[in-house]
Amino acid sequence: MSFIADAVAKLDKTLPPVKVPAANYVSFTMSGDLLIIAGQIGNPGAAKAGVVGNGLSVEAARAEAERSALGILAAIDAALDGDADRIVQVLRLGVFIASTPDFDGHSMVANGASDLIVAVLGEKGRHARTAIGVSSLPTGAAVEVDAVLQIRPPASV
Amino acid sequence: MSFIADAVAKLDKTLPPVKVPAANYVSFTMSGDLLIIAGQIGNPGAAKAGVVGNGLSVEAARAEAERSALGILAAIDAALDGDADRIVQVLRLGVFIASTPDFDGHSMVANGASDLIVAVLGEKGRHARTAIGVSSLPTGAAVEVDAVLQIRPPASV
Amino acid sequence: MSFIADAVAKLDKTLPPVKVPAANYVSFTMSGDLLIIAGQIGNPGAAKAGVVGNGLSVEAARAEAERSALGILAAIDAALDGDADRIVQVLRLGVFIASTPDFDGHSMVANGASDLIVAVLGEKGRHARTAIGVSSLPTGAAVEVDAVLQIRPPASV
Repeated sequence: MSFIADAVAKLDKTLPPVKVPAANYVSFTMSGDLLIIAGQIGNPGAAKAGVVGNGLSVEAARAEAERSALGILAAIDAALDGDADRIVQVLRLGVFIASTPDFDGHSMVANGASDLIVAVLGEKGRHARTAIGVSSLPTGAAVEVDAVLQIRPPASV
Repeated sequence: MSFIADAVAKLDKTLPPVKVPAANYVSFTMSGDLLIIAGQIGNPGAAKAGVVGNGLSVEAARAEAERSALGILAAIDAALDGDADRIVQVLRLGVFIASTPDFDGHSMVANGASDLIVAVLGEKGRHARTAIGVSSLPTGAAVEVDAVLQIRPPASV
Repeated sequence: MSFIADAVAKLDKTLPPVKVPAANYVSFTMSGDLLIIAGQIGNPGAAKAGVVGNGLSVEAARAEAERSALGILAAIDAALDGDADRIVQVLRLGVFIASTPDFDGHSMVANGASDLIVAVLGEKGRHARTAIGVSSLPTGAAVEVDAVLQIRPPASV
């Protein structure tokens, strides 16, 4: 099992399958020492999660953020062929929260993603974050997360 | 004609003029092998396009996404002085869709941008994508798209 | 006083303290020649600023954008230990504006951030920009701004 899959399992969670995009985009791209992960939603194809401030609680949205972060970790694991030693630092998380105009608890929701990333990757998981409220998300998801990481080349054999 | 302008013409489309920003920002910046394109809207200065889910159809919004992607291609063409050989990979597209809280068809709209980029640039056009619904966009646009690319230096002469 | 603090003071403004995030994220990350600044809001912890188009004027939102940009400058100053000579270029600003669906004056609001960055950093401050309207922002802020910069290593002594 890869380091990431193992660390996730120790938290009693499971990496989702990496989304195979149905269109002309991909789950990740790499450029030099940058790894860019496409926006991940917690539970693609599920019933609509709803909008925070209108039927969805902060706790439920926080759990959605955590599921989105599991999608980020799964994409990282796939991009690096399971070699987590190649991770230098998670540089940035974008956290997008479907929410009403009067919602103001974005940090609590976004911490669901940030805390999981750091629980799995430790200090290398600490990131700059931009969290915003959006009107809606693909397939009615409540939270979407994307990421940029600094990576190093595979160790030569 | 540049490679990009020619490929766009073969699709019976036309590159728009590159926006000359009226303020203290620019249409693109470069850093090493990164090319960063500012947010492009499909039809600046036109009548308001509207909001998907409230008067604007998915098909019309998809066409707006395609127009925004033409703006991205025009900015790339200008940044590289028409030398498309310098494109290594489109790393990321951000697609922002003005939409109501109950809208969930972001992927269909965003494919208007993704499909055009790949139709013009081929495999080098495949990108990681983040698509979100937003409350509103500059000048009442329905779709805004931004981009990050990996580029190489010009071939030495 | 650092170059940035001094330039801000000449505009009769003051750098805010750099936010010490209460969670598993940080105010900035660096990777090679990239400096990534987390989303900054103008006045954390203050009364809710409101939503443009519903009780908050464009001028008031523009002032919020400027305050957010002061937060960006403070984070840059901290990241570079006050050594503004290390700034090569501000590559990108993301400007997120809490606004109603019919708002279309994003550029005027976002110029509050763009103009301040260029007033302080000059040509090195010109950036690609993506400005969008969002449903809500952390702590009820009206404007959030994030940034990516190209930097160089410190001059060797």
